[in-house]
Amino acid sequence: MDIREQGRLAKAASYKLASAGSSKKDEALRAIAEMLGSRYGEWLSANEEDLRNAEASGMKPAMLDRLRLSKERIDGIIEGVRQVMALPDPIGHVDGMDERPNGLIIGKKRVPLGVIGIIYEARPNVTVDAAALCLKSGNVCILRGGKEAINSNKCVVGLMREALKKAGLPEDCISLIEDTSRDSAKALMQLDEYVDVLIPRGGRDLIRTVARESSVPVIRTGEGVCHVYVDEAADLNMAADILYNAKCSRPSVCNAAECVLIHEAVAEDFLKLAVPLLDKHAVELRCDERALSILGQRGIKASPEDWDAEYDDYILAVHIVDSEDEAVDFINTHGSSHSEAIITRDYFKAQDFLERVDAAAVYVNASTRFTDGFEFGLGAEIGISTQKLHARGPMGLSELTSIKYIVYGKGQVR
Amino acid sequence: MDIREQGRLAKAASYKLASAGSSKKDEALRAIAEMLGSRYGEWLSANEEDLRNAEASGMKPAMLDRLRLSKERIDGIIEGVRQVMALPDPIGHVDGMDERPNGLIIGKKRVPLGVIGIIYEARPNVTVDAAALCLKSGNVCILRGGKEAINSNKCVVGLMREALKKAGLPEDCISLIEDTSRDSAKALMQLDEYVDVLIPRGGRDLIRTVARESSVPVIRTGEGVCHVYVDEAADLNMAADILYNAKCSRPSVCNAAECVLIHEAVAEDFLKLAVPLLDKHAVELRCDERALSILGQRGIKASPEDWDAEYDDYILAVHIVDSEDEAVDFINTHGSSHSEAIITRDYFKAQDFLERVDAAAVYVNASTRFTDGFEFGLGAEIGISTQKLHARGPMGLSELTSIKYIVYGKGQVR
Repeated sequence: MDIREQGRLAKAASYKLASAGSSKKDEALRAIAEMLGSRYGEWLSANEEDLRNAEASGMKPAMLDRLRLSKERIDGIIEGVRQVMALPDPIGHVDGMDERPNGLIIGKKRVPLGVIGIIYEARPNVTVDAAALCLKSGNVCILRGGKEAINSNKCVVGLMREALKKAGLPEDCISLIEDTSRDSAKALMQLDEYVDVLIPRGGRDLIRTVARESSVPVIRTGEGVCHVYVDEAADLNMAADILYNAKCSRPSVCNAAECVLIHEAVAEDFLKLAVPLLDKHAVELRCDERALSILGQRGIKASPEDWDAEYDDYILAVHIVDSEDEAVDFINTHGSSHSEAIITRDYFKAQDFLERVDAAAVYVNASTRFTDGFEFGLGAEIGISTQKLHARGPMGLSELTSIKYIVYGKGQVR
Repeated sequence: MDIREQGRLAKAASYKLASAGSSKKDEALRAIAEMLGSRYGEWLSANEEDLRNAEASGMKPAMLDRLRLSKERIDGIIEGVRQVMALPDPIGHVDGMDERPNGLIIGKKRVPLGVIGIIYEARPNVTVDAAALCLKSGNVCILRGGKEAINSNKCVVGLMREALKKAGLPEDCISLIEDTSRDSAKALMQLDEYVDVLIPRGGRDLIRTVARESSVPVIRTGEGVCHVYVDEAADLNMAADILYNAKCSRPSVCNAAECVLIHEAVAEDFLKLAVPLLDKHAVELRCDERALSILGQRGIKASPEDWDAEYDDYILAVHIVDSEDEAVDFINTHGSSHSEAIITRDYFKAQDFLERVDAAAVYVNASTRFTDGFEFGLGAEIGISTQKLHARGPMGLSELTSIKYIVYGKGQVR
């Protein structure tokens, strides 16, 4: 189908969905969960076709693993749909109404964004996760997944559309762009007449391209160049544990640490504690001059690019600073405004770090790995915004909403 | 100066301003008001130069009037700065903190957006209004005004920077892009490394160009294709008064009505009451077939473009519908999601209209002209957002903010 026409249908469906009410939306989510539970075999077969094509084209094992579905993974996805269903509906809430001096009664009512475009790569679970979050928050979604997962996506979007129909909602509440050429992504990015926001989910290049080329408003998510700063007043054992967790518990995710900053007064003592932990995963240490003089053969010399790198791997940049002040400047210069942590016993340093570091989440004495919708109590997450506009940090259901002013008058003119 | 360098300086200043505190910011606003009060003569002289150049290049009288400053206008601008100063500071507020099951204490703290780029046309008052709102909300602004006002802008930005310095804040909290070529606007739109948001203020073409070409997030403001729908159950006298107000009280602004939709059952009676009012300003009526058959010589035939037109003039499109349902569909298709009104005595029609019309402000029995930061009680306004992302409707100080999560831990790892 023509993408403009798909946009038009999505917009039309969005007006119906916006006033569908919570019960109707939950009925549709339940129907989706049941549909996936009873007909998951179809999805698995389609996924096998994708896997065969991917293997034939020489896809790497790590990528193949992301693409692969299994009965267990599908069960997890269904459980996710049920969890989203159980969350409170953010739509319709009016946070107080006020009467103005002229008698107008004005309130701000929470409404869906409308039509959300999701551009993502070859992870078939995103297709259902994103659709469920959009549906619960009253938003229509247009999904544009990677070409490697096209058969999986066609199948599961077909199943979800059947479920929508069964629940009495327009099928066009969820649709897939089946053309996976670069042109189709480009066309979606220009569809500002019908699409209210684009959320790219994937690597840095994808996100930057979408931000650069889109006339539809974009929410940038998931770029994570995160730091752990070990202050001179840190509990060094705590600092070593936190750094180990922030770097090694899951290095491929955006809230993992990429760089440790260490106050020079404690650098030697701290590294003595931290390196044995990092050794467990043979973490490569890319060091400035001072760190190198401490670590010797264990470190390698960093290049300037290392200070801005998102490794997503068992690699860590190591930089020694003279003060908390220098650490804050370094973070504000090189960080991606995602998650930043200070480890210190010093009350004033802790408060200063919280105040001056410019990031979505700033931690005192805890791992950056907590930046996550579930950990923060949002109940779900469509991504972690690293921009300041609209939403910042983990985006739950209420970050997928907007407001409208409703005004009750009795003939007022101005 | 190179625009990248200007961006870098602005970003550096933004970190200082973000933690400057309310008293400091108010001190700077007071210094600006005093500076403009004591040295307004310099601004007037610079403005005279702009006016001479503009007249020589054949600028139209209405545009010349927008460009012109006077002692009275400057007094009004100074009063505006003082009003902004008196508003509560939105920054620093934490709307409750929660302890998570793992003991992390998490709060959302209100913070400035950072660096705001304002692209606007030849209205020198915008230079001060925008700078004052940004300063109060802790944001650095980079101003890029129209070339016709360049001398006025250079002068007043110079005065404001002097005032900032006097108050002990970085001069770079307010800066002007002095190069008014198209290239400089383009460069600003690509400065996503340093600029957090762009707010274009001006005509539709300017706004669409910025939305299309910018990699910096944009807030679209001020496109207004607004409707008044006269329901079959309307108080027709009230409807005529409201339409007259919505169309004629200030036709050049974005919350003025461009189109009246009339239920066919009351079309003839309503037009009998409304046309004599509209006659006072000789409003041109562009009509569909049915309206034309009622109005005869008083109307002219509408072309399809009329249903999407923002006239900003004494022109009104007139369209007759068969139902409230048809009116809602028409508005959702042709409106710009700004301000929409229904005039009715019917409770259910009123609620349905509020529910289903997709716009920043939806009115029952009141004029669309009320959509305004002052009328809504925000105390100030930098524009009226017609998008759903980040802010919708009149944007006051709190719409110029973002949040950051602050997290107090005691060694937690995940």
